[in-house]
Amino acid sequence: MLHSEVKGKLLAIVGAENVEDNNASLLAYSYDSTARFQALPDAMVAPRNTEEVAGVVKVCNEHKIPIVPRGSGTNLCAGTTPTKGGIVLIFKHMNHILEIDQENLTMTVEPGVYTKDILNAAIDVGLFYPPDPGSMHISQIGGNISENSGGLRGLKYGVTRDYVLGLEIVLPNGEVIQTGGKLAKDVAGYDLTRLYIGAEGTLGVITKAILKLIPQPETKKTMLALYEDLEAAAETVSAIIANRIIPATLEFLDQATVQVVEDFAEIGLPVEAKAVLLIEQDGPPEVVDRDMDKIEELCKDNRAFDVQVAKTVEEAEQLTAARRSALSALSRLKPTTILEDATVPRSEIAKMVKAIGEIAEKYQLNICTFGHAGDGNLHPTCLTDARDEAEIELVEKAFEEIFQQAVALGGTITGEHGVGMMKLPYLHLKAGEHGIEAMRSIKQAIDPNGIMNPGKMIEPKGRQRMVVEHQ
Amino acid sequence: MLHSEVKGKLLAIVGAENVEDNNASLLAYSYDSTARFQALPDAMVAPRNTEEVAGVVKVCNEHKIPIVPRGSGTNLCAGTTPTKGGIVLIFKHMNHILEIDQENLTMTVEPGVYTKDILNAAIDVGLFYPPDPGSMHISQIGGNISENSGGLRGLKYGVTRDYVLGLEIVLPNGEVIQTGGKLAKDVAGYDLTRLYIGAEGTLGVITKAILKLIPQPETKKTMLALYEDLEAAAETVSAIIANRIIPATLEFLDQATVQVVEDFAEIGLPVEAKAVLLIEQDGPPEVVDRDMDKIEELCKDNRAFDVQVAKTVEEAEQLTAARRSALSALSRLKPTTILEDATVPRSEIAKMVKAIGEIAEKYQLNICTFGHAGDGNLHPTCLTDARDEAEIELVEKAFEEIFQQAVALGGTITGEHGVGMMKLPYLHLKAGEHGIEAMRSIKQAIDPNGIMNPGKMIEPKGRQRMVVEHQ
Repeated sequence: MLHSEVKGKLLAIVGAENVEDNNASLLAYSYDSTARFQALPDAMVAPRNTEEVAGVVKVCNEHKIPIVPRGSGTNLCAGTTPTKGGIVLIFKHMNHILEIDQENLTMTVEPGVYTKDILNAAIDVGLFYPPDPGSMHISQIGGNISENSGGLRGLKYGVTRDYVLGLEIVLPNGEVIQTGGKLAKDVAGYDLTRLYIGAEGTLGVITKAILKLIPQPETKKTMLALYEDLEAAAETVSAIIANRIIPATLEFLDQATVQVVEDFAEIGLPVEAKAVLLIEQDGPPEVVDRDMDKIEELCKDNRAFDVQVAKTVEEAEQLTAARRSALSALSRLKPTTILEDATVPRSEIAKMVKAIGEIAEKYQLNICTFGHAGDGNLHPTCLTDARDEAEIELVEKAFEEIFQQAVALGGTITGEHGVGMMKLPYLHLKAGEHGIEAMRSIKQAIDPNGIMNPGKMIEPKGRQRMVVEHQ
Repeated sequence: MLHSEVKGKLLAIVGAENVEDNNASLLAYSYDSTARFQALPDAMVAPRNTEEVAGVVKVCNEHKIPIVPRGSGTNLCAGTTPTKGGIVLIFKHMNHILEIDQENLTMTVEPGVYTKDILNAAIDVGLFYPPDPGSMHISQIGGNISENSGGLRGLKYGVTRDYVLGLEIVLPNGEVIQTGGKLAKDVAGYDLTRLYIGAEGTLGVITKAILKLIPQPETKKTMLALYEDLEAAAETVSAIIANRIIPATLEFLDQATVQVVEDFAEIGLPVEAKAVLLIEQDGPPEVVDRDMDKIEELCKDNRAFDVQVAKTVEEAEQLTAARRSALSALSRLKPTTILEDATVPRSEIAKMVKAIGEIAEKYQLNICTFGHAGDGNLHPTCLTDARDEAEIELVEKAFEEIFQQAVALGGTITGEHGVGMMKLPYLHLKAGEHGIEAMRSIKQAIDPNGIMNPGKMIEPKGRQRMVVEHQ
């Protein structure tokens, strides 16, 4: 519970209607989309503008009260669950698109804008915002930036980091800084913009962002390629790249995933295939046609037993929507869904999928795998039950082995979900102790009181997952 | 002069042939390509591998000896001139392309590889490394990364930062870390890769880099558009972008620059034009043809009095080579050439060029302007004489006003050259005192003894340019 003096100060800054500390509110902000992590904050605070954020941060810094900045809570790394009480900062008032600058191809936004609204606003003027995390319908851009969210278009277009040109940041001491600008080039000092992208809210609060837009691709085509075995699908991915084609989307789904997605979406997905590639290309029509013809040929050369090109925009949208529903579909099957994102160099996908299968077999677990084959970003997803402590112990062991395997193949413990509390105990596998030490020293330098999202990413101590029932 | 104990330790690590401290050597490493900055180091050290770099850094950290990592010294911000003696670290032995991975589209390099060799090695296998700083024929990739170098393709393809996937870094304490990898997505911890890109050697020594390659564009076309006035050229730039075309290159040259480049290159450049745009598009032939036709139309619509499309590859190469020679051509005219890179949002180019003209007029200085119009990155270049102290004082005042104007227009004090010693006194204009304070705290955290390239970018004290004759 907040000390009454602190609560009084916060009320004076944001108004009584923007501080909540009743039990229902605290419970609502006690968890995010990550299974098995939950802890109560002391209050929810909803500032209305940057000045109010700065005021709140100053009070918290003075009283050493933790701040957890939170968007829609769609993250899968327990990045927005409280760990030591404090306040959860939400951006329901700071949710405006402030400007679309068609001459400089930028959009300036507040952190609470939904990702999908950014894309739609860009499309309305013939422009495009490529990053499309799976949760983009409800995720907020502030969260996307803090997690450096990826998505289905990462191979060709990159990730959130590649579309943020500048930030307004409230530092942990309450001072406000501006980084970057409407600038394609800017090397004035350390790259604070990119340091804050993916910092998971541990270095300050992002209160504004200048996003880069690009011309909208003229057209798009979508196809499914079906395989009897996984290696053939992986070889196709390699063959496409070897032919110097970079598709907009190159998704992989294993049979188990296709089956549950079909049960959920009922659009006639090929449940008989052992592996499916969902491939999209966008761009000028001549190029899309040429690329898709070549890709179809490469799929067949690499033992696809069927290739289905979507005939209409609706059919194409149905296919990508089905892929996007994978997590929702999977999470219907068992009480607890643990979705990971071990990532490897593209060339190692077949080995990684095979290793996941063997690890699942070893621990007798139900793990489906789908993900972004084009950029090696896989989502092994375990269907389990958090109440079954014996099984959960096996799940922990299995994922640790999966992370070890990913790093051994030149990969990483997380491609797009972030570290948060979830993968804190595994960060050393990728970053090494000296790397973590460098990160800790930066954290300590910027946030000496440790108020910003404590217990995430680089805290010294290991994790003990809190066993709570899957929401 | 190095203490004999220190020198002995360094000799033991790298061998006697890789430590030089005779006067001729010290003089050779006392300056870079920046006019009017010069100071002697105590020694030049050339390590042969990462272990030797780590050993050297440990010795220097123990004895608090400054280290200035240096590529070819082509930078224009006095980023590699010594300030407090110490050693200049050069990479003549660490100059190998270690691997080209065609499946993952990466190239792994040591810091001493020439940028041009990277591009050529990529082209040899049908791939492409887009960043092309003006000095790419002789610049080294380590320097490019440390300065986050830009170039002529920034608008469409981005800058060095966008093509570095991972680094090997020797920290100031001598420990070696690996960041990133052959990975399109990686969010395991703070983005140390991007923090080190553009850090100007102030946070450690880069000893290896994994670069991202892309498929080589199938074809390229080049044209010149000639204008009676500057505004028309600037309006053309806006019109091209408004038509959702992103050219590979969109360069601006004022009449004075065209004149000196023609005097130098003698290829028949249009010296009668008040402003010239050099425009290139690359990609699939259909798209290049369509874009170039449209661009030609837009140039004419916006009052270009002539548009010249290069008829052959040789003619096109001659044009871009002429543009690349601008600095060399300009520096023949007067003893001292001071080339700056104030950068503004693309929409503000006309205002900025006009302001530069007015400031030159006010101080009665000879300032030519050319640069990357597509990304707002201009290079106002003052032809002067460092021995003329009265004029140099005016030059200082003029550039300060130019930087203020750039920032007032939403721009930055440096788009691609870096801060170094040269722009240290102006960094606050862009980053603000609180921004600089955040940067200083990071520097202090990572390099508590202040050994890495001291006196650059964010040192507390203002600069006094050292008056030395232009080399």
